[in-house]
Amino acid sequence: MSDQDTRRNKDAALVIIGMEILSGRTQDTNTHWMAERLTDHGVILKEVRIIQDDKDAIIRTVRDLSDSYDYVFTTGGIGPTHDDITAESIAEAFKVKLERNREAYGLLEEHYSIDELTPARAKMAMIPVGAELIPNPVTSAPGFIIKNVHVMAGVPRIMHAMFDHVLGAIEVGQPILSSTVTCGLQESQIAEDLGKLQDAYPDIEIGSYPHYRGGVLGLSLVLRSTDASILKTATDELVELIRKFGDEPKALTMRMPN
Amino acid sequence: MSDQDTRRNKDAALVIIGMEILSGRTQDTNTHWMAERLTDHGVILKEVRIIQDDKDAIIRTVRDLSDSYDYVFTTGGIGPTHDDITAESIAEAFKVKLERNREAYGLLEEHYSIDELTPARAKMAMIPVGAELIPNPVTSAPGFIIKNVHVMAGVPRIMHAMFDHVLGAIEVGQPILSSTVTCGLQESQIAEDLGKLQDAYPDIEIGSYPHYRGGVLGLSLVLRSTDASILKTATDELVELIRKFGDEPKALTMRMPN
Repeated sequence: MSDQDTRRNKDAALVIIGMEILSGRTQDTNTHWMAERLTDHGVILKEVRIIQDDKDAIIRTVRDLSDSYDYVFTTGGIGPTHDDITAESIAEAFKVKLERNREAYGLLEEHYSIDELTPARAKMAMIPVGAELIPNPVTSAPGFIIKNVHVMAGVPRIMHAMFDHVLGAIEVGQPILSSTVTCGLQESQIAEDLGKLQDAYPDIEIGSYPHYRGGVLGLSLVLRSTDASILKTATDELVELIRKFGDEPKALTMRMPN
Repeated sequence: MSDQDTRRNKDAALVIIGMEILSGRTQDTNTHWMAERLTDHGVILKEVRIIQDDKDAIIRTVRDLSDSYDYVFTTGGIGPTHDDITAESIAEAFKVKLERNREAYGLLEEHYSIDELTPARAKMAMIPVGAELIPNPVTSAPGFIIKNVHVMAGVPRIMHAMFDHVLGAIEVGQPILSSTVTCGLQESQIAEDLGKLQDAYPDIEIGSYPHYRGGVLGLSLVLRSTDASILKTATDELVELIRKFGDEPKALTMRMPN
């Protein structure tokens, strides 16, 4: 592999399938968890879509994202009930059949006794032809990988366990490091100089995020890069910039994955 | 308007623009807030997309969603810094020019003194031609409405204030009511009968959501409809169903917006 190949970070999209987020019943936490993990493993999460458990929506979304990004991750809709239609929709998206997967059925047989293995549970062994299984150490019903799409459960505890397996199946890259400098300046005071700093460091991504904490408007400036040394230099310049405007950075944190 | 017109609920998509969610730095809360408000006002949130502050991504996403849904709401990227490119991207998406909006500039002039109204701040008065402003009672820099797209700030406190204005600009519908029944059954025990209940009530949307609380697997069953009477009947049947399996509902809540 050339140097460029090894250094390029892969990109990804996440699809959250389920009405419970869209109806306002549940606060989504899977996005934040996945975003942190992918960043730590050098995969750039470029898009998240939260969609209904609707076959056409799943097919359209998975096709679109599978063509656009290196990796697609989905969560939700692989259980035994009528609203769990992820597996059949993804089979249709890739024009393959859905079949009773022997390995998946075996896993369910190990987990449940014979009279417990109802038709509803057996449904969870229906997997698109040609997919590789993702083990589920919590409730045994597996996820699966087909092409570049990684299909996981929506329940956070199960999704987290499945992601360990997925990490072995994708090409991780250089972790994306970040430094965050918090200050009391207004965004518009520093905007022009911040733009110049961005121009001077095209390989660093500089973001500016105003926020209210305890009723006081503050500003977090975030620098992101895979190169720790350039990141440090640019962060030092940013701190000088803040001092130039008569302010002192309130907090400076560098995020370096374990 | 015919009875059918008045009863149909409008649908919507939400676009969250900003790297801070995708990088894992920030937990998104705008989706949950908007999902609850839209549900209460009878607008069905069908899709959420979280995208980078990248011009092509914004253009592609806004065009796609504007064509597909009655309303589109965006949050983020309307501040004064280099990474705030929402207004120019949306102008390009709809092939209109970006201009210094007199009304927006006037609002900034009222808020800032003359020597405080820097070029960076003046940038926040650049609005696509033909757009209607959304007032910002917190920091004065307005959002805007163009076609069916409602462009709001990303900072939750400002976005919430802007949404009050947006509510006056959209057609709200019958609130979407819901009842949630929590029980100790496993999803697969009740799956078959739940599917039959769904078939018997095609106008009600029935969702099944397993969860871990304190290490114990539980199940929330959620029924959604705009019709309180049908919702009550179906909920009663669901409670009977749970009892049939020897369980007793742990909690039953009906969500009726104020």
